[in-house]
Amino acid sequence: MDRNAPVGVFDSGIGGLTVAREIIRQIPEERIVYFGDTARLPYGSKSRDTVARYSRQIIRFLRTKEVKAIVIACNTASAYALEAIQAESDIPVIGVVNAGARTAVSSTRNGKIGVIGTEGTVGSGIYKEVMHKLRPGAEVFEKSCPLFVPLVEEGLLHDSVTDEIASRYLSVLKEKYIDTLVLGCTHYPLLRSTLRRLMGDEVVLVNPAYETAVELRELLCSQGLERDCQAPLDGERYQFYVSDLAEKFTRFATSILPGEVKKTEKINIEDY
Amino acid sequence: MDRNAPVGVFDSGIGGLTVAREIIRQIPEERIVYFGDTARLPYGSKSRDTVARYSRQIIRFLRTKEVKAIVIACNTASAYALEAIQAESDIPVIGVVNAGARTAVSSTRNGKIGVIGTEGTVGSGIYKEVMHKLRPGAEVFEKSCPLFVPLVEEGLLHDSVTDEIASRYLSVLKEKYIDTLVLGCTHYPLLRSTLRRLMGDEVVLVNPAYETAVELRELLCSQGLERDCQAPLDGERYQFYVSDLAEKFTRFATSILPGEVKKTEKINIEDY
Repeated sequence: MDRNAPVGVFDSGIGGLTVAREIIRQIPEERIVYFGDTARLPYGSKSRDTVARYSRQIIRFLRTKEVKAIVIACNTASAYALEAIQAESDIPVIGVVNAGARTAVSSTRNGKIGVIGTEGTVGSGIYKEVMHKLRPGAEVFEKSCPLFVPLVEEGLLHDSVTDEIASRYLSVLKEKYIDTLVLGCTHYPLLRSTLRRLMGDEVVLVNPAYETAVELRELLCSQGLERDCQAPLDGERYQFYVSDLAEKFTRFATSILPGEVKKTEKINIEDY
Repeated sequence: MDRNAPVGVFDSGIGGLTVAREIIRQIPEERIVYFGDTARLPYGSKSRDTVARYSRQIIRFLRTKEVKAIVIACNTASAYALEAIQAESDIPVIGVVNAGARTAVSSTRNGKIGVIGTEGTVGSGIYKEVMHKLRPGAEVFEKSCPLFVPLVEEGLLHDSVTDEIASRYLSVLKEKYIDTLVLGCTHYPLLRSTLRRLMGDEVVLVNPAYETAVELRELLCSQGLERDCQAPLDGERYQFYVSDLAEKFTRFATSILPGEVKKTEKINIEDY
């Protein structure tokens, strides 16, 4: 395996850019090939079989780019497909769920952890499953928040409607006196200030995107796969592919990544 | 062409069932093959190319069921793909947009018409284009309402949050003194009571689903394609296919169609 090869990162759309952003911040020497499945998003309301099939197509596409490792930057795809893909794959594959779960378990003081996510992620019970393996006594309370993604995409990050909806979703978690809350969807960190205000300062908010970048760096080090900082760059350091709406993606990516994204290429993911 | 063959109806998901319901009410003798693209929904935020490609795959699937005519029961797909598909097709194809536009133009008294829909439908400008052909002087004001579909799917049909969002979306149309409002997305008739209250009794609400069933009946009559009421039924009168989540679809379809839906078959639409 070429240690100077890029890392593949994928998501159902734009949310995974929050994971790419953390990787860029924490391990800036690495190259990234990002794929966003904008033609078939969202994944959160779809079935396990469908999300797993889509994930396999994306893995096949990323392998054509000779990636050395893959990050599933989508909670739903991590929940539904990570184990199967790891079993089939001869390169390392990590997902956002494990990193988030591990951090939550080590952060909680009273053992009561809340998880918010899409219907798919919450319905899969994956966070609870992983947390129980790490800490069998943990009490995990999960709540799906289907309106958060559309509210974020509508730009209502600081809005009375978002407050009202968030307040309804979170009330059931507040009643359980959780002291740690996992933001189990890549869009949710964009609602951090609303969630912080509603949950109060005592509750730790865990952002799996951050933790995933930490885990990726450890993984690359432990396998001798860190990129040589002196290696020449052959082309762009960061490459972006989507299945639809490349220009819209480019604008969004430029707005949340540290540098300008010059282009995004549209591919037909159904061909893979 | 076999006049006793079924009519094909498709949508990005469940919304088109409101069109199927109107067809069942108005021409109960007809057989229907319905396809909902639940693995790739929603269409409203995707590009013209992608929606047109998905529509062609669905047409190829419906043709394997030997349908005699096709109804595009999705405003976005009608906006992006109807003309191209009509040009390529040797069976009649109709869409919800034309029926809705025609009714709005004949309903308005002051010539000011509002259209609400998804980003795709509104961005395409298709309603304005069709209405201007029918009545060049009409003033058409379009407004996309991206949160309506998620709010309906979350079940918030009668809720203060939906009121607040609807009030924001509609204010720009009220300022124009429209007297006719086209519900240009198949989910929106489910918000009819909220829209009615906010717009007032003077404004005519046009439901393209209803008008499309009227148009279909006229089309079948004019082409001698009406089903013979006495013809024996070979199998179920109504057949349902989806690309994902068949059981969830069956429950939803049973809740809005007049009879019980016994089964929905999941197919891989990417194979077509």
